[in-house]
Amino acid sequence: MSSQFKTIALIGKHKNLDIVAPLLSLGQYLEDRNLEVLLDSLTAATMAETRYPAMTIEDIGQYADLAIVLGGDGTMLNIARKLAPFKVPLVGINQGRLGFLTDLSIDTMFETLGSMLDGQYVTERRMLLYVEVARDDVAYDALALNDVAVNRGVGGNMIEFEVRINGEYVYLLRSDGLIVATPTGSTAYALSAGGPILHPSLDLITLVPVSPHTLSNRPIVVGPDAIVEILMHRTAVARVHSDSHSHFDLQENDKVVVRRSPHTVTLLHASNHSYYRMLREKLGWSGLPRNLA
Amino acid sequence: MSSQFKTIALIGKHKNLDIVAPLLSLGQYLEDRNLEVLLDSLTAATMAETRYPAMTIEDIGQYADLAIVLGGDGTMLNIARKLAPFKVPLVGINQGRLGFLTDLSIDTMFETLGSMLDGQYVTERRMLLYVEVARDDVAYDALALNDVAVNRGVGGNMIEFEVRINGEYVYLLRSDGLIVATPTGSTAYALSAGGPILHPSLDLITLVPVSPHTLSNRPIVVGPDAIVEILMHRTAVARVHSDSHSHFDLQENDKVVVRRSPHTVTLLHASNHSYYRMLREKLGWSGLPRNLA
Amino acid sequence: MSSQFKTIALIGKHKNLDIVAPLLSLGQYLEDRNLEVLLDSLTAATMAETRYPAMTIEDIGQYADLAIVLGGDGTMLNIARKLAPFKVPLVGINQGRLGFLTDLSIDTMFETLGSMLDGQYVTERRMLLYVEVARDDVAYDALALNDVAVNRGVGGNMIEFEVRINGEYVYLLRSDGLIVATPTGSTAYALSAGGPILHPSLDLITLVPVSPHTLSNRPIVVGPDAIVEILMHRTAVARVHSDSHSHFDLQENDKVVVRRSPHTVTLLHASNHSYYRMLREKLGWSGLPRNLA
Amino acid sequence: MSSQFKTIALIGKHKNLDIVAPLLSLGQYLEDRNLEVLLDSLTAATMAETRYPAMTIEDIGQYADLAIVLGGDGTMLNIARKLAPFKVPLVGINQGRLGFLTDLSIDTMFETLGSMLDGQYVTERRMLLYVEVARDDVAYDALALNDVAVNRGVGGNMIEFEVRINGEYVYLLRSDGLIVATPTGSTAYALSAGGPILHPSLDLITLVPVSPHTLSNRPIVVGPDAIVEILMHRTAVARVHSDSHSHFDLQENDKVVVRRSPHTVTLLHASNHSYYRMLREKLGWSGLPRNLA
Repeated sequence: MSSQFKTIALIGKHKNLDIVAPLLSLGQYLEDRNLEVLLDSLTAATMAETRYPAMTIEDIGQYADLAIVLGGDGTMLNIARKLAPFKVPLVGINQGRLGFLTDLSIDTMFETLGSMLDGQYVTERRMLLYVEVARDDVAYDALALNDVAVNRGVGGNMIEFEVRINGEYVYLLRSDGLIVATPTGSTAYALSAGGPILHPSLDLITLVPVSPHTLSNRPIVVGPDAIVEILMHRTAVARVHSDSHSHFDLQENDKVVVRRSPHTVTLLHASNHSYYRMLREKLGWSGLPRNLA
Repeated sequence: MSSQFKTIALIGKHKNLDIVAPLLSLGQYLEDRNLEVLLDSLTAATMAETRYPAMTIEDIGQYADLAIVLGGDGTMLNIARKLAPFKVPLVGINQGRLGFLTDLSIDTMFETLGSMLDGQYVTERRMLLYVEVARDDVAYDALALNDVAVNRGVGGNMIEFEVRINGEYVYLLRSDGLIVATPTGSTAYALSAGGPILHPSLDLITLVPVSPHTLSNRPIVVGPDAIVEILMHRTAVARVHSDSHSHFDLQENDKVVVRRSPHTVTLLHASNHSYYRMLREKLGWSGLPRNLA
Repeated sequence: MSSQFKTIALIGKHKNLDIVAPLLSLGQYLEDRNLEVLLDSLTAATMAETRYPAMTIEDIGQYADLAIVLGGDGTMLNIARKLAPFKVPLVGINQGRLGFLTDLSIDTMFETLGSMLDGQYVTERRMLLYVEVARDDVAYDALALNDVAVNRGVGGNMIEFEVRINGEYVYLLRSDGLIVATPTGSTAYALSAGGPILHPSLDLITLVPVSPHTLSNRPIVVGPDAIVEILMHRTAVARVHSDSHSHFDLQENDKVVVRRSPHTVTLLHASNHSYYRMLREKLGWSGLPRNLA
Repeated sequence: MSSQFKTIALIGKHKNLDIVAPLLSLGQYLEDRNLEVLLDSLTAATMAETRYPAMTIEDIGQYADLAIVLGGDGTMLNIARKLAPFKVPLVGINQGRLGFLTDLSIDTMFETLGSMLDGQYVTERRMLLYVEVARDDVAYDALALNDVAVNRGVGGNMIEFEVRINGEYVYLLRSDGLIVATPTGSTAYALSAGGPILHPSLDLITLVPVSPHTLSNRPIVVGPDAIVEILMHRTAVARVHSDSHSHFDLQENDKVVVRRSPHTVTLLHASNHSYYRMLREKLGWSGLPRNLA
């Protein structure tokens, strides 16, 4: 069976030498299948490899039919955000313990990738968030696949802000912060802060307060078209973070606006992928049903 | 302005004498507006009133354009489930502290109802759950507007069961129980057990474990088409409850199946109704934004 | 080195045939050390063994210097409560996954017991609770090593009661129940319901509400001399449970009084016993510090 | 009845002009009772008042028999820490909503203070924590009446550290932080982060993780003699805060050591003071028992 994926980009964890050998093997494997191989230019630099064309993520977005990412969930988040505007689907391979997003094991990658390139895969579309900070003009903006979090910075005190959803006043929150998360992010930081697990097939946004002063300020789940506005009150140091990768220092009266991005990320999984099995493994839930234990 | 509601049913809290005087006033008020008034037969018996036709809830379902319920959220849940197959919209009036479902105050009911009958209202559609217990055949079934809960009965030990969603194995849960809740139910029992608040405009189902043995068994939110199967393991006493009103004793190997009901409930609210304001009041969140405090 | 333990009782999990062979080996091992061996009469019946004197737990309490319990934490709780008035120290051996109270593995029991009989052990004293239900007279009383829990019975509704500590009114609680736990019980049911982990060297009592209606009704920790009174309000079915083993049906106006028992339980552990290591293993916390990982 | 308090210090919230008039009234009231009045020098500056001797908190510690603090819990925390070495008892008066530490209302202060000066009061002793950061030498140290918190600073990522108690390894924690709190602090930041309420009559220390990565990393309660060591791993920005008032930036391999301070704080309350009533009011618990409602 011939694959619909002709041109495949290889992207590795930044400045990590452990990825070199597996990526070379992967390149050879893809060449053997008569597929064209591209390298992310930072990955090429790490590999000191000139055999395959090296290009920016943006160019990969133009030319690749598929991106294979070797690294952890952090690497996958970074690449997924950058490729989102180009609709290039992603596969994640993890060298260590499997991640929520990097669910292929390096130990079985040839067998699994082989089946996937033969068409044996399932496709998942994940929503993204877009955040803007309005000061005079737009002072900061970013995409987030996991979450946008407003947190206290270095100060020792709670921060305070008003939250509105679709223009309607929700509450005045005094807390360590507020996490606005996608279903993808619901198993990351938001889960640690007490948020619910949102099935990733859903388009939803959850607001999870971090250590709120009022104990009844519990997580809220709203629809994907909710526009969440956070109006900063106190001048105590506060920051907004997107996927824990970029951030911006907030001032009093800054308005942080979070909404669904028009872009989405497409993840490919092996055909036997199971979200609940992944939850069981990652969260240490009991394994098999009794009749199979 | 003429109302689209010509025939209006009045339904009061069962066997509660405090509803008699307000319902008589309401009946007179509706008569004065040239509307036809019906009485639920149980309510008529409580009122000892023969002025208006008394009929079963099923007949009210056939003939009424609108049902006005006077009582608490428990009364509203009962009537809403029974009227759901007939698509009669409901308005809830509370004599005491406002409820999540009974959001008109008896003190201002004439003014608010007057505006609503003049067409000043907003409509909300709420999903219901349908639960069946499969033993040999269907041994129990019920509708639920809030939740279906599998709980330990009188036993002093945790109960144990397997959960599947759409046929896929999720986990083996050892706990005091599991609550399967709608957005309407997300602010009731499920909230006490640690579940998230789901905006009632959404069609979603949340699974909230009650005192789970494994601390990472956190609430999960799935889509409205999820079919949740609960397969009972141990013979320890367990019960399934629907909206805390009907129940059924479970045995080992019973399968409790919960899915979305094809019926929905329509609630009418005053035009200035705000879900978030109701949350603030019911949950004791801070009141006004700073600039209005 | 000669042991201070001359007469040793062997007690196995009730009606469990898997204990027979290990208990016979243990008996032989103790005989070889010239120690006197006693058998709990129920254990002797399960073993169909007449080699060692069989007697009640009460008689074991009179004659034994040490009791070795083979089973899970449930068996250990039962025996510990019964032996508490006699001050006989206990050692727990687990056939499967180690428990909080049964912390010797059957695989290494001879080596570990040998060292302990040679004097290489640490001693731990654990407090117990005593519960009485006052109706006309004392209608129920029991000891508990883990917890006393007032729970709703088969009813589908919350139960309601007043709580007083040392005569001072604390709150009116509407919930699924209230757990009054010792430090020993703080890692059992109380932990599932959101309670804190209390170090077992402390004499403390924690009150942990189960699914409370008011979200700020959080766990409270009080001193060992606190007398906790629970006055039942509603006639909805409620039960009091002691260590999930005995129970009593409650009525409106029943008063459940929980206080520290004058008895304590003495546990012996191997010298290298570590409470925090046990927590790490039982709760799945990360293992070793970085420099040893 | 003559008071044992002859010399009384008045201390107001820093740079707050609202305290001037009430403090002048208080001064006159105390003069009328033939008591000697001292002023904290910062308070005297705010008041522009020269009628009473103004002195440092340290001198107040030497000369005063009682300190009356007018302000919120934050002011009280500051003054209490500074006066702790001098054993001067404190009374707190709040101008607005009563605090946990400032439990006299300004509206009834003369009546309440009058009774207290007549000997109608109860005394409460509260433990303090002492924190040191060991780098080469002691790089930072502070007292805390509420809590010592290690938090991530401006970074967007979790911080990671090892925790030892009395030299025994507890866990490797990946989280937003760790709060080490006294019973006094158990109703402050630690409560927001999920910690238990510890009765203030107890000498206990609780460790409350903030948004821990591992969901089973639940709050732990240990005895007052526990020495808590926190060894910083990652170089991600982290800070230690004492009572949210002083802080210190941490580096990899810094060791934060928290233990009980030899000092305590003595609080005086009116005779009818009730800790549980304060909890009910501050946390919005239901008010009166049913028979009094």
